[in-house]
Amino acid sequence: MVIYLDHAATTPIIPVALAAYVDALGLVGNPSSIHSQGQQAKRMLEESRETVAASLGADAVEVVFTSGGTESVNLGIKGLWWKRQEGGVSRPRILVPGGEHHATNDAVEWLVRYEGAVVEWLPVDAFGRLTPEVLAAALAGGAADAGAGVGDDVALVSFLWANNEVGTLQPVAELAAVAARFGVPVHVDAVSAYGYVPIDFRALGVAALSVSAHKIGGPVGVGALLLSRSAEVVPLIHGGGQQRGRSGTQDAAGAAAFAAAARAAVHGLSEFGDELAVLRDRLVAGILSRVPEAVLRGDPSRDGRLPGNAHFTFAGCEGDSLLFLLDVAGFSVSTGSACQAGVPEVSHVLTAMGVPELEARGALRMTLGHGTTVADVDALVGAMPAAVARASKAGFADRVVA
Amino acid sequence: MVIYLDHAATTPIIPVALAAYVDALGLVGNPSSIHSQGQQAKRMLEESRETVAASLGADAVEVVFTSGGTESVNLGIKGLWWKRQEGGVSRPRILVPGGEHHATNDAVEWLVRYEGAVVEWLPVDAFGRLTPEVLAAALAGGAADAGAGVGDDVALVSFLWANNEVGTLQPVAELAAVAARFGVPVHVDAVSAYGYVPIDFRALGVAALSVSAHKIGGPVGVGALLLSRSAEVVPLIHGGGQQRGRSGTQDAAGAAAFAAAARAAVHGLSEFGDELAVLRDRLVAGILSRVPEAVLRGDPSRDGRLPGNAHFTFAGCEGDSLLFLLDVAGFSVSTGSACQAGVPEVSHVLTAMGVPELEARGALRMTLGHGTTVADVDALVGAMPAAVARASKAGFADRVVA
Repeated sequence: MVIYLDHAATTPIIPVALAAYVDALGLVGNPSSIHSQGQQAKRMLEESRETVAASLGADAVEVVFTSGGTESVNLGIKGLWWKRQEGGVSRPRILVPGGEHHATNDAVEWLVRYEGAVVEWLPVDAFGRLTPEVLAAALAGGAADAGAGVGDDVALVSFLWANNEVGTLQPVAELAAVAARFGVPVHVDAVSAYGYVPIDFRALGVAALSVSAHKIGGPVGVGALLLSRSAEVVPLIHGGGQQRGRSGTQDAAGAAAFAAAARAAVHGLSEFGDELAVLRDRLVAGILSRVPEAVLRGDPSRDGRLPGNAHFTFAGCEGDSLLFLLDVAGFSVSTGSACQAGVPEVSHVLTAMGVPELEARGALRMTLGHGTTVADVDALVGAMPAAVARASKAGFADRVVA
Repeated sequence: MVIYLDHAATTPIIPVALAAYVDALGLVGNPSSIHSQGQQAKRMLEESRETVAASLGADAVEVVFTSGGTESVNLGIKGLWWKRQEGGVSRPRILVPGGEHHATNDAVEWLVRYEGAVVEWLPVDAFGRLTPEVLAAALAGGAADAGAGVGDDVALVSFLWANNEVGTLQPVAELAAVAARFGVPVHVDAVSAYGYVPIDFRALGVAALSVSAHKIGGPVGVGALLLSRSAEVVPLIHGGGQQRGRSGTQDAAGAAAFAAAARAAVHGLSEFGDELAVLRDRLVAGILSRVPEAVLRGDPSRDGRLPGNAHFTFAGCEGDSLLFLLDVAGFSVSTGSACQAGVPEVSHVLTAMGVPELEARGALRMTLGHGTTVADVDALVGAMPAAVARASKAGFADRVVA
């Protein structure tokens, strides 16, 4: 029996979402077809859109279904960037904090390489947090350089709601308010936050926000970009124009499954978060007390990080060695982002936070989610000392083992 | 009981695909995760990739899973275009026949508007077919204008394997051979052909080819771009780099369902095609004999069009009126592409074929697929005269009813 503590990579589909999916898969018809069967699929799609919107404090018209978080992030960032270059103006600058997800980093770097964008990586603090002051200075500074109106040369700002590796929550509302003061549109990558902390798109007032279904118990391959009524993006995928800024046959069954997961995710969200935080705190306290080398990364305060996230570095260990040893012992954990797993590089998130390389190499992320129990946590705490001791012995070539 | 004759818009998921899907959805783990659960998901994904590849005469490494046909077409066209501009050369020209799917047309028009591409719409014949001679002349002609090497200024050629509205099959092998002679990469949109005619990617020798799962009995939201070993595309969706040219958490369950549908689609494909052609010919003959206004569109020969496609124009009717009347009578059909349904425009496919507007307005597409019976066909033939008579009476404002 494997204990799954990698919910941030993907969380198992929940029974109500699976049931909704299987039901919906039996329905025949393309939602774009005019006949009754098509219109029935369309009704299911639009009801799902309303449910997903409601789970995020948005209106249905603001939900653009996508194939997942990565497409959403690409559409949000590239789509806003292109839109901001229209009308003969040049707004080359993109402001992004260090330690973002690779979907953001790679999309931005593509815009730099292919489309003439200029990116500024904003410094984050030791927890991986971007402060409103740093953002305000970057927005104001560039304008002075360019001699343009304040913020006029900035295409967009993009940042994570919660860091997907270390779990630190950004001061999203404050950052959004700063950008709004400069009139610069904001994209928020809320993929890892959705289903774990409350999200109110309307109150936040940003242009765009990305979420994914499989991080909240829905299926893989389904996500959404929330796009405010007043914002526009240039599409990434063209053809047919089925949704604002997104083409392609709409996945009514996937949307229905996503909606079922969304409904479950927001129902009792605060209790779920509290329960996870208690388990997470037990895990953190257990590891800190049993493993002297362990250093908790990200914001250590109870409400400063995702309730299900525990992230440590173990100086003198390779994270991969720890992962393999724990895998053999029956625990599924991660060294960081699953999207980069297998690539033997130090986490760019830890680097952005100023963690020295030798410590960063021993990174381990444990993410709790639905179904995680006290027994799971205690079992992992129990297994950790031996795993760390063994991984330390394997160590690095360049480290003297005491 | 509704008779579904709109399989080209989407075909119902087949039981083996649904069963594979439900099984796979129970599996926990992101295929990019290193732990055993992740690796198990990865194995399922890679086995599915091999099955899909085999169904198309391709190698597994040539299969890039996408969110569907539209993303595949966008990746094929834009990805090849960007790649062909690398290394300091300028290859602005894109050659595309008239009457392509909107995924192609809209992607190409975006490249023209945003990226400096120059599109040439190649003329097609009365059946919607692009001849190798027309393509060769276009490839040779531009080179003379530009003073460059032959074909050097062309980024790519893209065309449908089978027209999604009128069903006409292109001379794909001949067209590919012509482009190869000029050293120009080809993208083939095989979304409507896949599962209905044999496809051998290796023998064809093109750079890229798009397919979609939900057109062959797999789920919506899953597709693939075949990308030959020797071809490269610039990605459309960045972040993580999970597949050649495509990022995002890979949908292992969707891939498994797609693979089950692909296996079923190629098993007995020739018999399935023969059976459909017999039913289609019965439908065509029945309508032609019962409805004097009916004109069959697309290639009338048995093997010149998709076996399940019957497309007519009924002069003096609005296609939408016919569709609604048949819907009420219990038949799901289409006026053309579902992707454009609801937009009261004359089909650009029929326009490219030279069909006069007044005739083109009365377009109706019936597409047969798995589960279609003789009784279904006969019922539609029986219902057609009354529907056409009634639609003719409603007619156009500008037509005198006899």
